[in-house]
Amino acid sequence: MEALKQSVWEANMDLPKYGLVTFTWGNVSGIDRESGLVVIKPSGVPYDELKADQMVVVDLEGRVVEGDYRPSSDTATHVVLYKSFENIGGVVHTHSPWATSFAQAGRGVLPLGTTHGDYFYGEVPCTRPMTEEEIKGAYELETGNVIVETFRERQIDPNLVPSVLVNSHAPFCWGKDPGNAVHNAVVLEEVAKMMLHTVQLNPQVNAMSQHLLDRHYLRKHGANAYYGQKS
Amino acid sequence: MEALKQSVWEANMDLPKYGLVTFTWGNVSGIDRESGLVVIKPSGVPYDELKADQMVVVDLEGRVVEGDYRPSSDTATHVVLYKSFENIGGVVHTHSPWATSFAQAGRGVLPLGTTHGDYFYGEVPCTRPMTEEEIKGAYELETGNVIVETFRERQIDPNLVPSVLVNSHAPFCWGKDPGNAVHNAVVLEEVAKMMLHTVQLNPQVNAMSQHLLDRHYLRKHGANAYYGQKS
Amino acid sequence: MEALKQSVWEANMDLPKYGLVTFTWGNVSGIDRESGLVVIKPSGVPYDELKADQMVVVDLEGRVVEGDYRPSSDTATHVVLYKSFENIGGVVHTHSPWATSFAQAGRGVLPLGTTHGDYFYGEVPCTRPMTEEEIKGAYELETGNVIVETFRERQIDPNLVPSVLVNSHAPFCWGKDPGNAVHNAVVLEEVAKMMLHTVQLNPQVNAMSQHLLDRHYLRKHGANAYYGQKS
Amino acid sequence: MEALKQSVWEANMDLPKYGLVTFTWGNVSGIDRESGLVVIKPSGVPYDELKADQMVVVDLEGRVVEGDYRPSSDTATHVVLYKSFENIGGVVHTHSPWATSFAQAGRGVLPLGTTHGDYFYGEVPCTRPMTEEEIKGAYELETGNVIVETFRERQIDPNLVPSVLVNSHAPFCWGKDPGNAVHNAVVLEEVAKMMLHTVQLNPQVNAMSQHLLDRHYLRKHGANAYYGQKS
Repeated sequence: MEALKQSVWEANMDLPKYGLVTFTWGNVSGIDRESGLVVIKPSGVPYDELKADQMVVVDLEGRVVEGDYRPSSDTATHVVLYKSFENIGGVVHTHSPWATSFAQAGRGVLPLGTTHGDYFYGEVPCTRPMTEEEIKGAYELETGNVIVETFRERQIDPNLVPSVLVNSHAPFCWGKDPGNAVHNAVVLEEVAKMMLHTVQLNPQVNAMSQHLLDRHYLRKHGANAYYGQKS
Repeated sequence: MEALKQSVWEANMDLPKYGLVTFTWGNVSGIDRESGLVVIKPSGVPYDELKADQMVVVDLEGRVVEGDYRPSSDTATHVVLYKSFENIGGVVHTHSPWATSFAQAGRGVLPLGTTHGDYFYGEVPCTRPMTEEEIKGAYELETGNVIVETFRERQIDPNLVPSVLVNSHAPFCWGKDPGNAVHNAVVLEEVAKMMLHTVQLNPQVNAMSQHLLDRHYLRKHGANAYYGQKS
Repeated sequence: MEALKQSVWEANMDLPKYGLVTFTWGNVSGIDRESGLVVIKPSGVPYDELKADQMVVVDLEGRVVEGDYRPSSDTATHVVLYKSFENIGGVVHTHSPWATSFAQAGRGVLPLGTTHGDYFYGEVPCTRPMTEEEIKGAYELETGNVIVETFRERQIDPNLVPSVLVNSHAPFCWGKDPGNAVHNAVVLEEVAKMMLHTVQLNPQVNAMSQHLLDRHYLRKHGANAYYGQKS
Repeated sequence: MEALKQSVWEANMDLPKYGLVTFTWGNVSGIDRESGLVVIKPSGVPYDELKADQMVVVDLEGRVVEGDYRPSSDTATHVVLYKSFENIGGVVHTHSPWATSFAQAGRGVLPLGTTHGDYFYGEVPCTRPMTEEEIKGAYELETGNVIVETFRERQIDPNLVPSVLVNSHAPFCWGKDPGNAVHNAVVLEEVAKMMLHTVQLNPQVNAMSQHLLDRHYLRKHGANAYYGQKS
């Protein structure tokens, strides 16, 4: 659990490093699938004061099991994602400005080029607006539910498209571990920025060809990947 | 008074730290409500030369009570805000570029997402253009008056929306103390930037749902807030 | 002359500090009005290798009087400005990206707010395109001539509007000394950026009121200025 | 070969320095024309861990001749460029965001001002979309082929326009050596950014005059260049 706290802390510290957060507007968690315990950032603690031993441990009902701090106010959303997306090991939420602009506009980020295709096998979707009942009820849990609903209804595999835009809110991203989740959040911010500029240069632009998407996604992912060094 | 000078100085030094000022284009003040004395940045002194003991003390008529320097040329505006908005403890004025672009365009910043709703309970308004008489008269005092008029006529509570855009000019922000005022100025700059990009992505975008605005504002503010650590 | 070399060197070093140059795309000069000698950056020398004693001294015909280096390729333009605008003491040329975008678009930067009005008493004009003859002839000298023509024909006082956009090229700015010229170049970049965003927010935006422009320009400039400390 | 490894490593390290890369999204190579050997970045190695002795040596068939690492996955593209463009000594590929936005939009970067004309003697073209066969076949080699086809069919001299945008992908740039290739990549990013803003300011903007393009390109290049110091 100490190793997971360390990696969750490091991934949290990557958020200001990559320019993804203003103030405390972000949180990263990681899960230990064996014990079913989730390690997450404490709520509202500034990044320049954050220490690894302040990370909070919660179970899959979101109850604090260990730690002196309140967990992130978004904990319930993280927990829903871990329960529904069984292969993921880390989750991150930020208000990074380009991706958040898409969330506010209610638009997904389309695969317009190989930068996108190297990481996301298709559109990063935007959820539907939440209902009054969802917002007034268990809001953070319902935020997780509407993400899961989006992937299920649009038949998107969360392992192949590890990010979402929550309507009128901001992105959530995930990955095989906390660091990988943050990596995907950096990519999402970059492709969101480039999509706005691409559309400004060519309002009629279409998604890239499926062949090119296949080629790039598969050269970095899966059994026949040939990008990077052999591990 | 020395403690207030220190906190006003620190809040001024946060302006370049957060990228809100070019040259000397900004000033922060704080008020001691007991004595009715306001501490404010001296006019035109570069941030990298600014020291805590250069802060100027003025009374609520804007008269210098202590200090070797001229106070900020915008002092009269600050004073009007302290007199009219009785709960505020700090005021900041900058020409931060995104918020200033809204002021120049004569547009308010709409609540388009939860980033906005976490801090501003509704639109950050833009004032009407000032009249020839106001501009030729006690200009800085009239700037304060037109801000107060905007909140009164549009029935906006300055405690819930702690920022304004002065038409053809730039933002003023406030808060419970000088540091909090600067905090709000950082948020305003961020949500202004995101609103322009949101509108470019979706020209028909509407304000977020009132339910979502309520939820986010109230989870950070008020009696039932549950964001952050218990204080 | 050594003091002028030092101040020209310092002003040149401010260009990378303020983010106005990529590579060697900029140059600053200063004039000693008594001797009529101009000190200017050597051509093509990278900023991180630039030393004060490498500055080149030229006369008002552009002939090198002192120095081991070739002067900036834009020297002839600087010289024309010193000859025609008799009150200026420093000139700077950059390809700063926002101002250069206006030059490429053939548009002037309008006074849309007080940030502009604090420094430029009206529109920063864009020159007409240069003719084939001008370009094939003494090109850099003709660049100076078309700047002077623009101010003369549009009856703009170069002391009140110390910047210009050269069509299809980039800005030239000036001031009472080399440091002040660079100061104005920073302001021009900032107001150019804000004008584009202002127009995107409000395509029908008009110039600010003349009263407000008067008020702001005159509170910083002229006999009754009240911004800053008494000198 | 060790000197070439060093200069290729240095040119790679310039990519993060100039803000052209996120993560490992870029690679630089250099060629020793005598031996016909190409030195290139290893695939997927982070820049902050990259060392000169990790550079990989390949021949003009793309076969590894020396080095413990896999070469960049884009090696085949580099090799095609070296074979087809006989005067070039360095090649760089990045996903720098402004140029990549043009690639995604399928638009070339037009010569709109002297910044462009100082480096590129005309439009930086965008290739046609690649076919299914090209993408499913020897994709990276075909990427090189479509670049070469673009220059041949549009009769553009790669020595005078040392950059291209690969449709739905990103830029490739080249130069007389690895450092010069990266220099051109920095320029391309800058002029791409300025073109978008120029077009937003003036949707009807045309390319700069041919006379001005001639003047600027030739004052920096060719027998009669007069920019910079005599070498």
